[in-house]
Amino acid sequence: MTHKIAILGASGYTGAELVRLISQHPSFEIAALSADRKAGMEMSQVFPHLRHLDMPTLCKIGEIDFSQIDLCFCALPHKTSQEVIAALPKTLKIVDLSADFRLRDPAAYEKWYGNPHNALEQQTEAVYGLTEFYRNDIAAARLVAGTGCNAATGQFALRPLIADGVIDLDEIILDLKCAVSGAGRSLKEGLLHAELSEGYNAYAIGGTHRHLGEFDQEFSKVAGRAVKVQFTPHLMPANRGILATAYVKGDAQHIHECLAAAYTGEPFIEVLPFGEAPSTHHVRGSNFCHIGVAADRIEGRAIVIAALDNLTKGSSGQALQNANLMLGEDETSGLMMAPLFP
Amino acid sequence: MTHKIAILGASGYTGAELVRLISQHPSFEIAALSADRKAGMEMSQVFPHLRHLDMPTLCKIGEIDFSQIDLCFCALPHKTSQEVIAALPKTLKIVDLSADFRLRDPAAYEKWYGNPHNALEQQTEAVYGLTEFYRNDIAAARLVAGTGCNAATGQFALRPLIADGVIDLDEIILDLKCAVSGAGRSLKEGLLHAELSEGYNAYAIGGTHRHLGEFDQEFSKVAGRAVKVQFTPHLMPANRGILATAYVKGDAQHIHECLAAAYTGEPFIEVLPFGEAPSTHHVRGSNFCHIGVAADRIEGRAIVIAALDNLTKGSSGQALQNANLMLGEDETSGLMMAPLFP
Amino acid sequence: MTHKIAILGASGYTGAELVRLISQHPSFEIAALSADRKAGMEMSQVFPHLRHLDMPTLCKIGEIDFSQIDLCFCALPHKTSQEVIAALPKTLKIVDLSADFRLRDPAAYEKWYGNPHNALEQQTEAVYGLTEFYRNDIAAARLVAGTGCNAATGQFALRPLIADGVIDLDEIILDLKCAVSGAGRSLKEGLLHAELSEGYNAYAIGGTHRHLGEFDQEFSKVAGRAVKVQFTPHLMPANRGILATAYVKGDAQHIHECLAAAYTGEPFIEVLPFGEAPSTHHVRGSNFCHIGVAADRIEGRAIVIAALDNLTKGSSGQALQNANLMLGEDETSGLMMAPLFP
Amino acid sequence: MTHKIAILGASGYTGAELVRLISQHPSFEIAALSADRKAGMEMSQVFPHLRHLDMPTLCKIGEIDFSQIDLCFCALPHKTSQEVIAALPKTLKIVDLSADFRLRDPAAYEKWYGNPHNALEQQTEAVYGLTEFYRNDIAAARLVAGTGCNAATGQFALRPLIADGVIDLDEIILDLKCAVSGAGRSLKEGLLHAELSEGYNAYAIGGTHRHLGEFDQEFSKVAGRAVKVQFTPHLMPANRGILATAYVKGDAQHIHECLAAAYTGEPFIEVLPFGEAPSTHHVRGSNFCHIGVAADRIEGRAIVIAALDNLTKGSSGQALQNANLMLGEDETSGLMMAPLFP
Repeated sequence: MTHKIAILGASGYTGAELVRLISQHPSFEIAALSADRKAGMEMSQVFPHLRHLDMPTLCKIGEIDFSQIDLCFCALPHKTSQEVIAALPKTLKIVDLSADFRLRDPAAYEKWYGNPHNALEQQTEAVYGLTEFYRNDIAAARLVAGTGCNAATGQFALRPLIADGVIDLDEIILDLKCAVSGAGRSLKEGLLHAELSEGYNAYAIGGTHRHLGEFDQEFSKVAGRAVKVQFTPHLMPANRGILATAYVKGDAQHIHECLAAAYTGEPFIEVLPFGEAPSTHHVRGSNFCHIGVAADRIEGRAIVIAALDNLTKGSSGQALQNANLMLGEDETSGLMMAPLFP
Repeated sequence: MTHKIAILGASGYTGAELVRLISQHPSFEIAALSADRKAGMEMSQVFPHLRHLDMPTLCKIGEIDFSQIDLCFCALPHKTSQEVIAALPKTLKIVDLSADFRLRDPAAYEKWYGNPHNALEQQTEAVYGLTEFYRNDIAAARLVAGTGCNAATGQFALRPLIADGVIDLDEIILDLKCAVSGAGRSLKEGLLHAELSEGYNAYAIGGTHRHLGEFDQEFSKVAGRAVKVQFTPHLMPANRGILATAYVKGDAQHIHECLAAAYTGEPFIEVLPFGEAPSTHHVRGSNFCHIGVAADRIEGRAIVIAALDNLTKGSSGQALQNANLMLGEDETSGLMMAPLFP
Repeated sequence: MTHKIAILGASGYTGAELVRLISQHPSFEIAALSADRKAGMEMSQVFPHLRHLDMPTLCKIGEIDFSQIDLCFCALPHKTSQEVIAALPKTLKIVDLSADFRLRDPAAYEKWYGNPHNALEQQTEAVYGLTEFYRNDIAAARLVAGTGCNAATGQFALRPLIADGVIDLDEIILDLKCAVSGAGRSLKEGLLHAELSEGYNAYAIGGTHRHLGEFDQEFSKVAGRAVKVQFTPHLMPANRGILATAYVKGDAQHIHECLAAAYTGEPFIEVLPFGEAPSTHHVRGSNFCHIGVAADRIEGRAIVIAALDNLTKGSSGQALQNANLMLGEDETSGLMMAPLFP
Repeated sequence: MTHKIAILGASGYTGAELVRLISQHPSFEIAALSADRKAGMEMSQVFPHLRHLDMPTLCKIGEIDFSQIDLCFCALPHKTSQEVIAALPKTLKIVDLSADFRLRDPAAYEKWYGNPHNALEQQTEAVYGLTEFYRNDIAAARLVAGTGCNAATGQFALRPLIADGVIDLDEIILDLKCAVSGAGRSLKEGLLHAELSEGYNAYAIGGTHRHLGEFDQEFSKVAGRAVKVQFTPHLMPANRGILATAYVKGDAQHIHECLAAAYTGEPFIEVLPFGEAPSTHHVRGSNFCHIGVAADRIEGRAIVIAALDNLTKGSSGQALQNANLMLGEDETSGLMMAPLFP
């Protein structure tokens, strides 16, 4: 059986990544693509790398007949997303890739995003989309909120450790290295090749990055108490890939065992042999997440490193994984492609 | 029906690319992987991006039971390849990715490669592996010689034009821009990130690049007379992608029509609308080749530009396409993945 | 004696490059920096790499007291530049880096740039700024028009050959590879790291690039007849560096001799030994231009390749070289820094 | 007065960087260049970017008449360096860029480098070359041991804080991002463009990087007690630049004040306004170090980030700064060039 899929916001990177992935999916068919400012254009004009595909012409959201759609991906900016989703049919299955439905607490949303939430009804029913930890809820959900790409990476490294209490909850430091596609197709000087290539810097320093809202919510939830991590993202001269280096206090071997146990049987999470370091080079273009653990020379300290592709496992791949669950398909369907190396 | 596949020389880039592609192939199964100097290692140690795959341990060629193999890819260096292939079972289907069986004339081989050919029997039966132009021969072949990656790109741009006589055969200039993976996993100073990134240069200038042997052979064959092109490759700070800019004399519209007609129905060759320029950005990681044609401001001159991924359409993807034909599978099987962008 | 310098348009790349160079100049002092939209900001906010310098605050052009300025660099967009320069004091020495005063023929200007020229008086007195070929005129000039960066590179490769008639004037093909800083600090999707890195493409194909106006003017002038070259630029995933590959007909040895003779004694032009290929890696950040010549395997054909840094020798370094001449300083003053490698 | 300079190991990156810098130095003259395996070659063959310079032919060390040399830079591998230096004239001024004379304790040297020290006499007299903290000792020294590039960066961020006791000495985490030129001109697969570009990974995880020997020695010395930091380096897809992100406990404002005070008047160290983050983009090719401080959202925690160019301020620039002191020149001589951006 073929599922009819709509993608709203198809002119951004996560939209294009969804098309890339779904083009190889055995039972999904893209029935509608929206891009308000580029409505009327062909996808091949906006993304020439997709020119071999026979895709619907880009349209405005209002032109889509959602009664013919089985599942809708929203790859719109936050704030816009909640408005659009509030207006969609209430029975339509939706995977939202924006930040709008990630935070359970509207006050937390307003704190991190600066605007009040205007779709509280939908926000209430939304399920947090970190597939490996919300699988059953996602399978039963109508609306799934895709996670932040940094938030996903940090959680893959730390969530089982916090849940099992094998690390000191008050001493977690997360140093993240992010590729530039995480910033989207934004026209900013700092994202130009001339200004980004060949160098790197921290940004959103001091605990101001919005994905901290997700860390706070999820880590506190699994710990059963407030957990606040120290989190500093760095912008890298690369297009895809997040490397999260977590500095934690605890027994490194226990930490490794905890992660290995937590991810046993997971199709996309690979816990490396103890002492090995993962690399974003080895996950590019794929839905895999590699995790490594090592003991520091200082007794009682460990390093946990997670690597994934922000556009795939960090957003569009995760979204497809969730959609598979929501539509009763094999969770890995369309997602087992190997990374691209070199 | 599942075909058992062996890959000889699996520790190089084209070997790893074959594994990447075949891992998604519905009816191919990798039964043996050789890498003489890395025998005994797991593929995941040599190429950690493939760690999610359940692959045979790397072995020496002599350890493979070829009676259980339906088709063997040889991704070995030239000269080694001919020796290995000469010693393989005479009925084994083989796709060779080296230069050893590309040239029909042993004297031409010796001229370009500097050593006499030592497997003339096999050389005689080998079919040149440019799928779009040797489809029937390849389907019937036992031994197929994969083309040079530069040679493939240049031929996609020029071959129909030479065959149809729509350009001046004595005035063809081919300026090629090649990504570094075309040089293989070679330890040379000039291929280090520190020395290659952020700059570019021509190499093998003056008509000394070995792929000229293929151009001379194939272009002369289709023209029915000697055709020598002027060919200068340039090394680019990128990992995948060949852009061939061909400067030709002829009517640009006729040239565009000739190419469009030649590639009608071809699943992997996309001729762009007249006047548009292709980009290697739009074919990365895929088996597609994009071709553009424009008229120069100077009357009677045209530019033909072809873009492909050297590791996919330029070598391992082409090899798989040929293997599909040789084993009676759909030619596109395992090869329709979209390019990776960004 | 110290010369007081003003730079108009200091918030662009060529402006910043001028500041970088002049900061090391023994007898130039930057007295004023303008940037209309960033007036009131410090240079260190716009370009943090210059934070060690004690620079004047960015101002509007109208705020500069030009009676205190010995020479003014205009690093403004074309069209704006002519308007600004027409309004500056008529005795002020000016080096203009825009396209506005490069073309002698106002009709040619209008053809290539799409707008009529509105500063014909200044246009008449302007001297074309290709230092090595207009040295005496520049030393005596009030207004010098810096060349296009591509135009400079192509002329270094070809100008002596056209002047001496050692190549066929009707068969010149120029395939250029340009770094992205040549496009300036422009916010365009194609210049984003995510879209530019790791790939390449031709642009302005078919003879539509504006620098052809300069080639036509200068090559025709030195040839004493109309000369039209075929010119195709390609955008490279690198920040600095132009590589011009010229395909010409003529005797390669004569060509090499002609170039070697033409550039004897030139401090910035290095003609490599016959058969060697230059690389943009070896001129980055410097004012040098490397030129190589090789014979093709086809009798009577040669390749001439020139490499320079578009921001230095291709624009701001050239501008400083010209300013040195105009102010009676040593032509090489402030310009002898070695390239940055790696 | 001109000082005659020798550079041993001129075929590596730090050797080439020394030549780049010294070529602009007003009173240094390169009198000898050694490179054992490339003896007899011209520097322009080994590093074509230096072809404009009139340099001595590369020779073997034994061929140099050290009686004519005022100061010798040793840019040799560790272990080799100590042997060579032990055999040089005992009165020759030397700046060593290797690791051989950095550690005061021979046992520490053997622990981190794996071989016993064989030049203990020289080791005793060597002065640690972190200019800003050993200025007077360096001016009086015969033999100065250049610091590790990572060690320099971490110390610029942390040393005043440890000396003044404004941070918790037992809770220092240093997450370092290093460019690839720090690995030298080594032929390793992981340093190839194809394998390094577009991704990143930690290495030497668990506190095994050799520069920890320097951190332990220097931080313990200034603290007057044992101080062990947790240090994890990451390899970046860039050629130049180290970014050290230090996670510390203390009052962020005090930390900023402490650093600002410590570096007042320092010509090369720039402490940014509170809350700003430095970038390696803004120091490339220069001898500057930019340092930023921010408070984390978690009370009592701060982030200190330092950025410098590993080949300049991290090694060859530092070496020249030290040589200036040793020869009585202005410390900044030949070192005030602005960074290269973009």
